[in-house]
Amino acid sequence: MFSSHFNDALSALAKTAAQRDRQGGHAAKEKALLRDAGLLRLAIPAKHGGDERSWPDIYRHVRALANVDSALAHVLAFHQLQVATVLIYGTSQQQCTWLRRTVDESGWWGNALNPRDARLQATPSPSQLSQDGYVLNGPKGFCSGTRGSHYLTVSARVNNHVQPVLGLLETAAPGISVKDDWNPMGQRQTDSGSVQFTQVKLPLSAVMRSEHAETTAFHTLRNCLAQLVLVNLFVGVAQGARNQARDYAIAHVKPWQGSGIENATDDPYLLRRMGEMQAQISGAALMADHAASLLQNAWQQGESLTAAGRAEVAVAVFEAKVMAHRCTLFATQEMFDVVGSRGTHADLGFDRFWRNVRTHTLHDPLDYKLQTLGRWAVHGEEPSAHNYN
Amino acid sequence: MFSSHFNDALSALAKTAAQRDRQGGHAAKEKALLRDAGLLRLAIPAKHGGDERSWPDIYRHVRALANVDSALAHVLAFHQLQVATVLIYGTSQQQCTWLRRTVDESGWWGNALNPRDARLQATPSPSQLSQDGYVLNGPKGFCSGTRGSHYLTVSARVNNHVQPVLGLLETAAPGISVKDDWNPMGQRQTDSGSVQFTQVKLPLSAVMRSEHAETTAFHTLRNCLAQLVLVNLFVGVAQGARNQARDYAIAHVKPWQGSGIENATDDPYLLRRMGEMQAQISGAALMADHAASLLQNAWQQGESLTAAGRAEVAVAVFEAKVMAHRCTLFATQEMFDVVGSRGTHADLGFDRFWRNVRTHTLHDPLDYKLQTLGRWAVHGEEPSAHNYN
Amino acid sequence: MFSSHFNDALSALAKTAAQRDRQGGHAAKEKALLRDAGLLRLAIPAKHGGDERSWPDIYRHVRALANVDSALAHVLAFHQLQVATVLIYGTSQQQCTWLRRTVDESGWWGNALNPRDARLQATPSPSQLSQDGYVLNGPKGFCSGTRGSHYLTVSARVNNHVQPVLGLLETAAPGISVKDDWNPMGQRQTDSGSVQFTQVKLPLSAVMRSEHAETTAFHTLRNCLAQLVLVNLFVGVAQGARNQARDYAIAHVKPWQGSGIENATDDPYLLRRMGEMQAQISGAALMADHAASLLQNAWQQGESLTAAGRAEVAVAVFEAKVMAHRCTLFATQEMFDVVGSRGTHADLGFDRFWRNVRTHTLHDPLDYKLQTLGRWAVHGEEPSAHNYN
Amino acid sequence: MFSSHFNDALSALAKTAAQRDRQGGHAAKEKALLRDAGLLRLAIPAKHGGDERSWPDIYRHVRALANVDSALAHVLAFHQLQVATVLIYGTSQQQCTWLRRTVDESGWWGNALNPRDARLQATPSPSQLSQDGYVLNGPKGFCSGTRGSHYLTVSARVNNHVQPVLGLLETAAPGISVKDDWNPMGQRQTDSGSVQFTQVKLPLSAVMRSEHAETTAFHTLRNCLAQLVLVNLFVGVAQGARNQARDYAIAHVKPWQGSGIENATDDPYLLRRMGEMQAQISGAALMADHAASLLQNAWQQGESLTAAGRAEVAVAVFEAKVMAHRCTLFATQEMFDVVGSRGTHADLGFDRFWRNVRTHTLHDPLDYKLQTLGRWAVHGEEPSAHNYN
Repeated sequence: MFSSHFNDALSALAKTAAQRDRQGGHAAKEKALLRDAGLLRLAIPAKHGGDERSWPDIYRHVRALANVDSALAHVLAFHQLQVATVLIYGTSQQQCTWLRRTVDESGWWGNALNPRDARLQATPSPSQLSQDGYVLNGPKGFCSGTRGSHYLTVSARVNNHVQPVLGLLETAAPGISVKDDWNPMGQRQTDSGSVQFTQVKLPLSAVMRSEHAETTAFHTLRNCLAQLVLVNLFVGVAQGARNQARDYAIAHVKPWQGSGIENATDDPYLLRRMGEMQAQISGAALMADHAASLLQNAWQQGESLTAAGRAEVAVAVFEAKVMAHRCTLFATQEMFDVVGSRGTHADLGFDRFWRNVRTHTLHDPLDYKLQTLGRWAVHGEEPSAHNYN
Repeated sequence: MFSSHFNDALSALAKTAAQRDRQGGHAAKEKALLRDAGLLRLAIPAKHGGDERSWPDIYRHVRALANVDSALAHVLAFHQLQVATVLIYGTSQQQCTWLRRTVDESGWWGNALNPRDARLQATPSPSQLSQDGYVLNGPKGFCSGTRGSHYLTVSARVNNHVQPVLGLLETAAPGISVKDDWNPMGQRQTDSGSVQFTQVKLPLSAVMRSEHAETTAFHTLRNCLAQLVLVNLFVGVAQGARNQARDYAIAHVKPWQGSGIENATDDPYLLRRMGEMQAQISGAALMADHAASLLQNAWQQGESLTAAGRAEVAVAVFEAKVMAHRCTLFATQEMFDVVGSRGTHADLGFDRFWRNVRTHTLHDPLDYKLQTLGRWAVHGEEPSAHNYN
Repeated sequence: MFSSHFNDALSALAKTAAQRDRQGGHAAKEKALLRDAGLLRLAIPAKHGGDERSWPDIYRHVRALANVDSALAHVLAFHQLQVATVLIYGTSQQQCTWLRRTVDESGWWGNALNPRDARLQATPSPSQLSQDGYVLNGPKGFCSGTRGSHYLTVSARVNNHVQPVLGLLETAAPGISVKDDWNPMGQRQTDSGSVQFTQVKLPLSAVMRSEHAETTAFHTLRNCLAQLVLVNLFVGVAQGARNQARDYAIAHVKPWQGSGIENATDDPYLLRRMGEMQAQISGAALMADHAASLLQNAWQQGESLTAAGRAEVAVAVFEAKVMAHRCTLFATQEMFDVVGSRGTHADLGFDRFWRNVRTHTLHDPLDYKLQTLGRWAVHGEEPSAHNYN
Repeated sequence: MFSSHFNDALSALAKTAAQRDRQGGHAAKEKALLRDAGLLRLAIPAKHGGDERSWPDIYRHVRALANVDSALAHVLAFHQLQVATVLIYGTSQQQCTWLRRTVDESGWWGNALNPRDARLQATPSPSQLSQDGYVLNGPKGFCSGTRGSHYLTVSARVNNHVQPVLGLLETAAPGISVKDDWNPMGQRQTDSGSVQFTQVKLPLSAVMRSEHAETTAFHTLRNCLAQLVLVNLFVGVAQGARNQARDYAIAHVKPWQGSGIENATDDPYLLRRMGEMQAQISGAALMADHAASLLQNAWQQGESLTAAGRAEVAVAVFEAKVMAHRCTLFATQEMFDVVGSRGTHADLGFDRFWRNVRTHTLHDPLDYKLQTLGRWAVHGEEPSAHNYN
């Protein structure tokens, strides 16, 4: 199903994942493996030299990567998300320029788009007739994948406008400083530190959307794309946790004294627990695939997508998120009841599964996703299309 | 999606479901509605005059019926299951005869197949050369749908043979006595009482399978068909419970004192709970559909179906069953936190949802389904194809 | 621990509980058994001829009764609660008069106090100097225990006053009509129907509290007493469900085919499930006892009880309620996985455990109890002492 | 309730707990703080110069310490457990000698008692008449608290005897080598590495129990003591997690966008979640106290303790363990939904709560504790008194 290059990269990353989790920091060598396996082209249209894979296909790559390394899966997925951002907001000219370069240069995309951080300001150039565009100043936090990237998408607040301006920049542009300040308890190699902008010029040619632009249903499909990254990471980590628990149990676990069982992997409680994981994971994976398939359909409608069509996608994404969230916390916690006390050795690094998803499941609160689903179930109310929805 | 006749039947059954749950017993008039809506032909091949619907389609009918009346949904589903039994085990001649009659006479199928009840004995006729076949004596329990049926499938033990003989009978045949002894706490109108056989003749022409026959992978697909009936009932009841809770909340529920909320249906806890139901139900429905689709594919392979192919179906069915089981107990219990104390009035009959699925979820123990899934997850072991699997 | 009369009453009630649950209605004969066992005197001070038992002791009686019949346990507990109401709000004279009569006449107390139902109006007599008091008109719902009672406590709204007037009445007083309109899905014999008041005179001598009175911390201890009734019913029903499941499993349940187990009661899943119930029930019972013990201490402080002292009791009661609520829904649902499909026969009536507690757990919403506990945990905020708290 | 020295130690340890968790290894300085606060004398009888505190009191110290540092809480608790071991198995002479020394030298106890590791062999000296006793050779794993200890209890296998010999040693004795090989994902400073014994002499004067000795009910109370250490650690960590979540939420958490709430700590979901933790923790703490109180009573009976009396303690301990296990995994996981994504910064170290209890809850499998409770609930079968029970 996957290319042999990708499969090779998965094997290579699996070997070092536990150790790199302890180190944290930037995974330059491993990102190179993913780049060399051609994965940066997945979402880019064929006309720009890309592979033009469908979203279900792209998410399956993300999920498989999350089986072994959910931090790099996040980086890879956010690269695709920025490509999608260019496809959603960029002009034909911008798409042509920046995506072709992405293919030609095998370049990574980062982002400085975090909507909850409004500190980055864009000042329009004095003459609106000039091509000068904006000047950016200030910090932006949670800029996943920006370290080591070639390009980045950026959002910045303009005076008191509700909508930010969206632009495209080279990461190496003058005035951009990527900080080495990402140090979380999980998802440690997502390079999600902050970026400082000092008198950074955003020319009009690189403005994807001004602060005056209207938001369409198609635009806000980006939120669904982003949420579905989370969903697939959750499912991928759950699968990884299950696989590790299974392999370790087969190789190392002893039956409990007095259980009267010869092989630990015949223990009725171990089997029941693994069966429970199996059912939950299959369900969450199916929901993730279903949502991706609806998303693909909506994606292909482009600007003709209606609010109702967008809502249908959002609901499927949120439903998948709820079940994937539960499933991944369950699997990463209960895998320990499978591997037992010797499976807690730090060298095994099995706790990274839980730490990764416990970090990632806090991206936006599940309670409010459930509330939104409740409004849909009770009142038939479409999810508002603001950020995170 | 459904015929207007079926939709009309659904409306009619919804109106009387609570009251008929209290009464229990045989729902002759309601079964006639289903018959008149043409539902008895769903699974019958076109060449015998039937509608030849796919299994996913048939299960969607069952599920929709379970929204309002899971007892009759069970009866309808078991009719289809007996038709499938004829298609699996019957000779061409038997299929032609019995299924054509089913269409022509608009007849219901019942069953006397319960594999856990080995009391019914078949005695081979003295001369094996004759066409006399067997004589049946003894009782059989849990014979769903037999009361009011025209035909029934039957299994009976022959001496010490492991495999029973399977046959076809008219329900009105001499020596068959359908007992009025079904009185459970839920699923009260499934007519699942016992049947007494006294010197009942099963001629060779009505024997679908002798006690000497080999069992193939295709044969045991019948268990998957039966399990998927349960899955779809669970999902259907969960949907029904959610719908009732929603409608009642909108019409009647008052906000809790001190909550500071104007409309109960804006209560954050109510919304979160309904959102939770929504996500679980969507997941379970998707898994049910997915399993039905795999089943359809395996069904079409007929006797060329391999054990591995059959296992793939069984695993998907069991995974769906786990999640549907959980979802339906959750929804039928938590709907009460939505409707509140006034929703417990006996006339509303909201407890029937829980009673129906609590009864039905005991059909075969979930623990052992989970264990089987665990063996699959840990050892890659195919589910044994014995009854209930 | 209990008197032999009480133990005899428990045995007698256990025999008919399932059948009386089906009937619903008024349990005159059974209430007589409880009365004859001397249980109506439990909470009455010795100086009025009562047994003056401590609250922990009284609740243990209630819980034991709820093991076999939670409807009558509710009626018995609410009798004690009305006695407590007289002790809290009544004057010495009223206590002396009404409680001595209770002992002498072996009379049951009912109530018309439901604070959520504001339809019952009290009109002050024209001359405030007269002894005429108020005239009561209107209906009151959820009047537990009133049918068949001798006396009742009553609350009624006076014009626009926030606080109702509280009074004492003979149930047989002119103008009081106890309706036979209690028909819920559970707790079917609690006689919690409505009462209609037509020009009922409430003389000043029977007014426990006027609409002008201040509410003290001691007064609101009544809410804690009422909540602790619920807690002990929940625990008692959970114990009853566990006991029934155990007895039925030992006597009737067969091991699951293919489990390789000889006796069902050695099944690892059955044992684990029963162990889970055991742990939950022990925990909930301990919390109920602890809260009752704090309550007893606060009770003995009388009007010197401080708001902080009252809050400590309320928190312990709410914590117990949360765990008892969870435990009882768990036990009454999971008992079926222990007894299996044959345990769903209507004659066994095992579903009454769930129906009883599912009805009773809706008395007031758990979500808001949790919210109140959250305010305590986060802000150290004392639970407001309004009704239900 | 605690001495000011202990409270000071708690404050000091709290400040460095997150950092020391990252480092792992031996906490010499922090152990000195506990020693200097006089905590090593808690369990030692007054006649040997100790404080002779009751077990409920000792466990309350352990629990309070686990609020801030569950690794050191384990070390402290295991010190008390070894003192108890001397009191259970030691002769009067041994008790007098070793416990008096403990007081005089302010010495820590470690252990080499792990019953699941049978590699350590004791060879009886050739002449049984001599005072030479045994010679010990081999490794022992999971020797909590041994590093930095002055004394240790040891168990070693003698030929094919089922029961090991139990002895007392100075940690600095010739031939004992304490390894620095403890590196788990949680409970990182418990010094639970392995110890290598090479020709270590165990003189008869230091043998507490020979391989021929009978085991009494009182002896096996030691298992209950050990299990109750786990229970109190679980509760203590849950309390610590709740406290941290509360403090961080008050200081740092922002309301979710679109929630319409001004302060995050008024969010209905946050409050409900904190209320849930509150109820679970109170319940688990109460069960822990109750079990400790039963244990104290049994302890005071000494060798007159019956098997039935011992079983009553064991059941209460196991019940408490089930609820504490659940509660602590819940609190340490859900605290993150309270603190939100910014609470995942590695410097905060909030994940250590979960890692600590996820490691510790694997000490012995909960499933088999539940099975044991199930046998008690169904069959009234006393828990076997083997290790871990």
